[in-house]
Amino acid sequence: METRINLPQNEMPSAWYNALPDLPTPLAPQLDPQTHELLTPDKLSAIFPEALIEQEMSLKRFIEIPEQVKDIYRLFRPTPLVRAKRLEEAIGSKCRIYYKNESVSPSGSHKTNTSVPQVYYNKLEGVKRLATETGAGQWGTALSFACSMFDMKCTVYMVKVSYEQKPYRKILINAYGGEIFPSPSMQTNAGREMLAKDPDCKGSLGLAISEAVEDAATHDDTKYTLGSVLNHVLLHQSIVGLETEKQLQMAGEKPDYLIGCVGGGSNFGGLVLPFLPRKLAGENITFVAAEPKACPTLTRGSFRYDYGDMARLTPLMKMHTLGHAFMPAPIHAGGLRYHGDAPIVCNLMAEGLVDARAYYQGECFEAAQLFLKTEGFLPAPETSHAIRSAIQVAKEAKPGSCVVFLYSGHGMLDLASYDAYLRGDLSNYELPQDCIDQALMMCPTIAG
Amino acid sequence: METRINLPQNEMPSAWYNALPDLPTPLAPQLDPQTHELLTPDKLSAIFPEALIEQEMSLKRFIEIPEQVKDIYRLFRPTPLVRAKRLEEAIGSKCRIYYKNESVSPSGSHKTNTSVPQVYYNKLEGVKRLATETGAGQWGTALSFACSMFDMKCTVYMVKVSYEQKPYRKILINAYGGEIFPSPSMQTNAGREMLAKDPDCKGSLGLAISEAVEDAATHDDTKYTLGSVLNHVLLHQSIVGLETEKQLQMAGEKPDYLIGCVGGGSNFGGLVLPFLPRKLAGENITFVAAEPKACPTLTRGSFRYDYGDMARLTPLMKMHTLGHAFMPAPIHAGGLRYHGDAPIVCNLMAEGLVDARAYYQGECFEAAQLFLKTEGFLPAPETSHAIRSAIQVAKEAKPGSCVVFLYSGHGMLDLASYDAYLRGDLSNYELPQDCIDQALMMCPTIAG
Repeated sequence: METRINLPQNEMPSAWYNALPDLPTPLAPQLDPQTHELLTPDKLSAIFPEALIEQEMSLKRFIEIPEQVKDIYRLFRPTPLVRAKRLEEAIGSKCRIYYKNESVSPSGSHKTNTSVPQVYYNKLEGVKRLATETGAGQWGTALSFACSMFDMKCTVYMVKVSYEQKPYRKILINAYGGEIFPSPSMQTNAGREMLAKDPDCKGSLGLAISEAVEDAATHDDTKYTLGSVLNHVLLHQSIVGLETEKQLQMAGEKPDYLIGCVGGGSNFGGLVLPFLPRKLAGENITFVAAEPKACPTLTRGSFRYDYGDMARLTPLMKMHTLGHAFMPAPIHAGGLRYHGDAPIVCNLMAEGLVDARAYYQGECFEAAQLFLKTEGFLPAPETSHAIRSAIQVAKEAKPGSCVVFLYSGHGMLDLASYDAYLRGDLSNYELPQDCIDQALMMCPTIAG
Repeated sequence: METRINLPQNEMPSAWYNALPDLPTPLAPQLDPQTHELLTPDKLSAIFPEALIEQEMSLKRFIEIPEQVKDIYRLFRPTPLVRAKRLEEAIGSKCRIYYKNESVSPSGSHKTNTSVPQVYYNKLEGVKRLATETGAGQWGTALSFACSMFDMKCTVYMVKVSYEQKPYRKILINAYGGEIFPSPSMQTNAGREMLAKDPDCKGSLGLAISEAVEDAATHDDTKYTLGSVLNHVLLHQSIVGLETEKQLQMAGEKPDYLIGCVGGGSNFGGLVLPFLPRKLAGENITFVAAEPKACPTLTRGSFRYDYGDMARLTPLMKMHTLGHAFMPAPIHAGGLRYHGDAPIVCNLMAEGLVDARAYYQGECFEAAQLFLKTEGFLPAPETSHAIRSAIQVAKEAKPGSCVVFLYSGHGMLDLASYDAYLRGDLSNYELPQDCIDQALMMCPTIAG
């Protein structure tokens, strides 16, 4: 039996899948951050190109992937779907466990699936430079990779705690030709204000987003890009689930569980959304979202309108949130330290279509090391949440179930966090309820 | 057209190719390091298991790959052969350039191809622990990976200059369950003697080999493993060339140039040796060996009997050597800092069957960055020599030629060296002739 299922390159999907028209309840619209009125597309055009704004609002079920994007995808796609037989044996599983390996992309994670089209559409519209934030560094690396493919300039604001934990990220982003600043930085008003208040501030994704948005809004040749949360990002990530569906068919499998870690929701959404029509048609597929107990957005956040960033520059979105002013603990899975979640994922969560589970970082590193010692590959700390969850699911599920998880990225640039784990130096922090209550008090009060 | 050629898993070669019976001139035999007499197999059994000694001497053209080794290979093999179209375009090439991507293995390089069978055969014969040396860390990582797959203990002596340049290597080897010491270490007589002479010694592969061999020879439950040079290592690496041959056939290609970087010769040998019968039968295939000007073994070494290590513990082998006492400059391609070369590769070199070329490290990093910015992936500093050479060959070759190089490993754990490159902080050292002359004076004088 083949343990790695390679989709032939000529069967790579030629269109992305857009879940918006298939949601059982329509998505709550984005609102203007100042007026709280319905957001009009022109409000977004200061920071996004037209093509992406159109995709953000589109109700077309499939959107063609441009040829030049497919050319770059072909450097690493289709990615393999792999049967984790040695992991199954190690945990005495009676289920079959597969992982979709997105770590094989040049930047080492699934983030390239959206960085490539985002750069492409910006380039088409004459943009010269892209600004963005990054948590663990996966998104910043993916964007600098894509900018180098299309010969664009790239500025990355990296959450300071991760910038310090992961010095190799900076070098790699520089090698691709991008520039990078630890956030809070002195480059923006948002950064300077935070540093004035707290010179030792370790940053958050919410704050880094504010910096990048401000950079884009204050420079004519520059636009902003976001690596998660938004509808068009999940659209681009759908290639993961579309390929997985074909590969499972090649293997003669039907999935019972689809599992992804959730920070902003892009890898999870990319894996599960293409299976939404089948789930809604009655197929028994469980969508499992794995998040950290230190930043438990889906399991303990409030489902309401909130800002996407700390400085309240982004549109208001209805989502599960811990409050835009929430400053998460410096856990090693930097990519999962976000106060909110993709509105599409939250919409499904509110419909009872997502099984969300929260984990301590210690148990996730333990799962990652078991994966390392059985399957051989070193997972990113974010990805370890999906592995932890897959192991739990495979132990609980009906024997013979097919469990698929998304291996979102490798951990080669996250080895300092493994060092902390091996030295027994990891805290198993769980967010106290009063922190959530306090941060939520800062949210706007909006009906709907 | 498919740009990535995936060999189906069920077509993974089931036997390794052994070049020994096909060499135009028989390989000069290994000699006893004390007596200078012909080495008998029993002399090797203090440090190697019987199965590997048998493979070292075997004249069988094909040797079956054990099932348990194939099971581990299947975690990452077959590896893709990739058309580097964007690189071709960037250099205005009229040739087709392919690379065989061995960086997709769990440890990130081709070294896993031999670490897996070496651990397997040792385990079969009851060995509990394996000791080895590592230069850049690729081999140490590959051995600790393989030991973790077969539940064996692992001790790695890592050349100190690389140990300090690449702190993540230590963590990764620890995460697999291995232990690691910078060499020279206080664990062995060889290490202690060197530290007494020079407390600041940055180490060499030759010295680290002495430490690992001494460790194995002085502990009953422990054997030694070598990641390059020896015949059985090149045998295991032949899977690279065997797969490449099938993949080129799938692509309708015949190779005109096969290119690999050379440190000890294992990745180069693995790629080219399976094509030796075709070359000897008259096909016009050029084998190009790319090495650093700072350690120019094939291009400027002397072809003679020498020890494999600094402490003169290994058998004497006839090879191109800069002298076993040679201490190479601390260039970033740590895996290419070896005074000798695989006897099989040297045998072919002496027959005029290898086109060896030496490069400055600066031009290699430049080639690596061009590869990064076109194909997207970050090469190991060793691999950058093969890329440099492939670009040179593609520019010089007859239009329409098919150029294949071995992408031996990724550079995710070598980013400190890219930092030095980007800061303009790399020396373009070329080894002076008197250094070679001096080191060669320490070689034994043996006819033949």
